[in-house]
Amino acid sequence: MSKSLTDHLNDITANIKPLNAEVQAATAAYLDTLTKPPGSLGKLESLAIQLAGITGNIKPSFTKKSVVVMAGDHGVCEEGISAFPAEVTPQMVMNFLNGGAAVNVLARQAGADVHCVDIGVGTELNHEKLLSRNIGRGTANMAKGPAMTREEALQSIITGAEIAAELASQGTQMFVTGEMGIGNTTPSAAIFSVLSGKQPSEVVGRGTGVTDERLIHKINVVEQAIQVNQPHAHDPLDVLSKVGGYEIGGLTGLILGAAAHGCPVIIDGFISSAAALIAKSICPEALAYMIASHASHEQAHVLLLEELGLHPMLQMDMRLGEGTGGVLCLHLVEAACRIMQEMATFESAGISGGSV
Amino acid sequence: MSKSLTDHLNDITANIKPLNAEVQAATAAYLDTLTKPPGSLGKLESLAIQLAGITGNIKPSFTKKSVVVMAGDHGVCEEGISAFPAEVTPQMVMNFLNGGAAVNVLARQAGADVHCVDIGVGTELNHEKLLSRNIGRGTANMAKGPAMTREEALQSIITGAEIAAELASQGTQMFVTGEMGIGNTTPSAAIFSVLSGKQPSEVVGRGTGVTDERLIHKINVVEQAIQVNQPHAHDPLDVLSKVGGYEIGGLTGLILGAAAHGCPVIIDGFISSAAALIAKSICPEALAYMIASHASHEQAHVLLLEELGLHPMLQMDMRLGEGTGGVLCLHLVEAACRIMQEMATFESAGISGGSV
Repeated sequence: MSKSLTDHLNDITANIKPLNAEVQAATAAYLDTLTKPPGSLGKLESLAIQLAGITGNIKPSFTKKSVVVMAGDHGVCEEGISAFPAEVTPQMVMNFLNGGAAVNVLARQAGADVHCVDIGVGTELNHEKLLSRNIGRGTANMAKGPAMTREEALQSIITGAEIAAELASQGTQMFVTGEMGIGNTTPSAAIFSVLSGKQPSEVVGRGTGVTDERLIHKINVVEQAIQVNQPHAHDPLDVLSKVGGYEIGGLTGLILGAAAHGCPVIIDGFISSAAALIAKSICPEALAYMIASHASHEQAHVLLLEELGLHPMLQMDMRLGEGTGGVLCLHLVEAACRIMQEMATFESAGISGGSV
Repeated sequence: MSKSLTDHLNDITANIKPLNAEVQAATAAYLDTLTKPPGSLGKLESLAIQLAGITGNIKPSFTKKSVVVMAGDHGVCEEGISAFPAEVTPQMVMNFLNGGAAVNVLARQAGADVHCVDIGVGTELNHEKLLSRNIGRGTANMAKGPAMTREEALQSIITGAEIAAELASQGTQMFVTGEMGIGNTTPSAAIFSVLSGKQPSEVVGRGTGVTDERLIHKINVVEQAIQVNQPHAHDPLDVLSKVGGYEIGGLTGLILGAAAHGCPVIIDGFISSAAALIAKSICPEALAYMIASHASHEQAHVLLLEELGLHPMLQMDMRLGEGTGGVLCLHLVEAACRIMQEMATFESAGISGGSV
């Protein structure tokens, strides 16, 4: 176990500060002067308050937004838990780099950059735009033993946090989590099960689309992975290393790194939420920087968001990952900012108040 | 009863055609060639299919989008059912015209125009941008008798349909419903109750924010309005005239007019959905042109959307009206269009298929 990696992680979490309560209170008070019944813009208002608390600015704006797509492969695919072959992971990475995937399309619409990271893809990849930070060529099969070593798990988190730091230094003000990894709903379900105490049967879903028969098999594989590895629920690094994945650790680090740099981070779907749960377990203060985007079609995602205490804004029945739901949420963030910047007040518009 | 108004409505509904099933099937087939598991973009995919069926174009785009905010006052405000005084309706109309309301802010973000219609405001208003189509200076108190005459109800629908026709002739390709009318959740609840057979206690909510005590009073007022007027559930014009409102009729007409001109129409919140329910009762084919935007905080809105058979995409806990939820949905419509236009196919990207 490298002492320096542990120190590095401690340095990151030490930089995650509570939100600015004074600015939040001022934002809430200002929202009540705008020409609408108090609270009537719902989650746009709570989002405006959160963004103000994160940035320390009552009327923040986010011009540079980055979606970070972490890609990794999973040894557990040997067990036949996915509808797609593992070779699709590197193929989709090339698709991200060439701008043809759904996340690229939706990021262009939202004015966000897409950064793709090879943190654990099974095949060697070369592309000028690829962030090559490979820690291992796919995890080991968690149904037979630990997915990775504790040091690799820690390295995946540090790698994600370093990417957040680099992008923040280049001007990124807001992050969106994204991922690609054939088979990765299976480790995500295992992580959720261990950290929440819920049974695998409650937290395993169909991923990108498996049949009834394969769903039962997938539950059995998660049960087996937990049985074989006995991860410790109170040690999130132990859970990540035994039943996680490189891209999940990378996202955990991205979330912690974003928070450490005072940037909001939008959480995409089930896999991103599993990474968020690890991040919260490592550093509960990080939760205040997270924005839930959508409730995915993956059955257990709603339960996972409840476990996190986050409230999604979109109900799109999406189950693609990549950061697609998170990127859609950027329009809602922009809406919250514009409400603060542009709406008239009761006074400026000469409108009578209510008796609520 | 004017024969010509009835004829006019019949002409409008006769122009509402079923969607193009062939183009819809081609769109569904094309979506399955894109680099994602089949169906994994959820409601973005069903939206893409619907938009294709409406326009007859597999890859439509909507450059000119119009939010139409219908404003009207309600005699039932005498009963003390709202948290705000009726004078707020004309004040907010001026706010819309001056660009300071929430719907203006969100429409600017989405690249949509806002058109504000005085269809039944209680006070005379003058503004160069106001569409002055006043049918009556507020409805009569429905707790004591019919809100309006059958002819006025019909006139409100025709007015809405004419506005849709004018805007379509000026290039509008997509509509969003919006409204302003202090007290208008009360007639909306009455309409929903009569057309669905549900009890007033199931369909009355807090509107923009009334207390527990006023909520019980509001239920009593709806019960009284239905008792006094005995609207006929199978005659939507009778329901609109007895327990409706001018802006609700205007929105019904806007929806029917949009559909008659082959334009999709995004339905905002509870009041807009009540207007949609009347539109569906008048012409069931119109439903295929409607897009549900958000499930509002108004308790019965989810039930009303279920009655319509529509599935909202946003869960923002909003309860403002004006078209604010509908305008947010424009970003999702744009996303669906861009997915069709810009995503790579499995073949173009050289990616292996799945075994779902």
